[in-house]
Amino acid sequence: MPRPTIPDRANTILRHARELILAKGYDNTTMAEIARRTGISKGAVYLDFPSKEALLDALLARSVRALAAAVRARVEAAAAPVPLSALYRYALEALLADELMLAFYTSDAGVLGSYVRGKGPARYGPRMDWLTGHLAELRDAGLIRADVDVEAAATVLGVFAIGLVHASATVGPLSPDRLRSAIDALADLIATGWETGDPAASGDRARHAHLRLIEALDRQVGSPPETPEETT
Amino acid sequence: MPRPTIPDRANTILRHARELILAKGYDNTTMAEIARRTGISKGAVYLDFPSKEALLDALLARSVRALAAAVRARVEAAAAPVPLSALYRYALEALLADELMLAFYTSDAGVLGSYVRGKGPARYGPRMDWLTGHLAELRDAGLIRADVDVEAAATVLGVFAIGLVHASATVGPLSPDRLRSAIDALADLIATGWETGDPAASGDRARHAHLRLIEALDRQVGSPPETPEETT
Repeated sequence: MPRPTIPDRANTILRHARELILAKGYDNTTMAEIARRTGISKGAVYLDFPSKEALLDALLARSVRALAAAVRARVEAAAAPVPLSALYRYALEALLADELMLAFYTSDAGVLGSYVRGKGPARYGPRMDWLTGHLAELRDAGLIRADVDVEAAATVLGVFAIGLVHASATVGPLSPDRLRSAIDALADLIATGWETGDPAASGDRARHAHLRLIEALDRQVGSPPETPEETT
Repeated sequence: MPRPTIPDRANTILRHARELILAKGYDNTTMAEIARRTGISKGAVYLDFPSKEALLDALLARSVRALAAAVRARVEAAAAPVPLSALYRYALEALLADELMLAFYTSDAGVLGSYVRGKGPARYGPRMDWLTGHLAELRDAGLIRADVDVEAAATVLGVFAIGLVHASATVGPLSPDRLRSAIDALADLIATGWETGDPAASGDRARHAHLRLIEALDRQVGSPPETPEETT
């Protein structure tokens, strides 16, 4: 029984919620305000999003999907094999381009931290496994050195990603520049320490591995309502 | 007005609390149980430790100081300059040797995570600054390459440390082996990517830098009551 107006309304709610969160922070944004800004009743907001958390969920899922799409496009467009360090830099660029994600990563409000805690191992455990598989595939493709312990390497990357989520709330706000330089520094370490730099590495196998990882992430965050132009 | 019996009692309480936490986990350990096990009244426990958090604070401070002491001893005993990657490995060995810290880092209960959140930037902000200073000193001593951006490098290390605290609760329990292999893998990356491996590097300056960092950490966690043999 699809109600065709709902996706549009959900999108409008999300757009206003995003603007309010960017302006005032997640904690200071209320469902009542989101309803007011959208020009609908609070009850109507709750019809699409049963809680503020559900709304955040949808906003973050949208950001993750946009990030995945941006990285996917660069992987697909690349002529040469894309090494892991380059994939990291593509993701960084996409992250810095998303105002909401950037705000969450660089503010000290800890919104992302409590979000991630709420999802817990059910969501992030599989990602660690995908990452291990991804690194194994890159190793098989000749991009990562044969002597790299891929489980240990995936753990390093996973732990770093977890640390980024909690960094601002732990050590104080990170500036976007500092976020960029830290991720860049890690990408450099990866390139120097783990990558072969072998021009004969299999670009096809690497591309396949990257796309599989992106696809898994994308599928995990699901597909909330989108307007037609946003799904294309 | 020092009361000479209190440090002893506080130590006994801490010892029993540690045993209970190791056996049942922090969340399942009550102040009443700690009092019962210690053979004193609950009121007497609260006299030394106004809350369970204060008790955890004292236990963790003690672990951090023991860890600092173990690393300091190895730095002082080293004949050759101690590179950053070796310092990392010393800290890892000390961490793996401390049953309580290991339990916190490898369990998914999230105790460390909420502890760190509670302390926040007031505690961990300065550590990031000390780390940046430490890396700058190691660079000046010739152990770290001149072209390494020490602020970015410190951010990588800080973010990784933050990630370790939250890892088990985020992706599921990490085994001690996995914790070890991840820290080892990062130490390898550091050695390959940032270190000069220069035998002419200044061992004295490096030692001085390491000891200053350890001293700062040590001083920050303060000096709760200790039995005489534990302070030596």
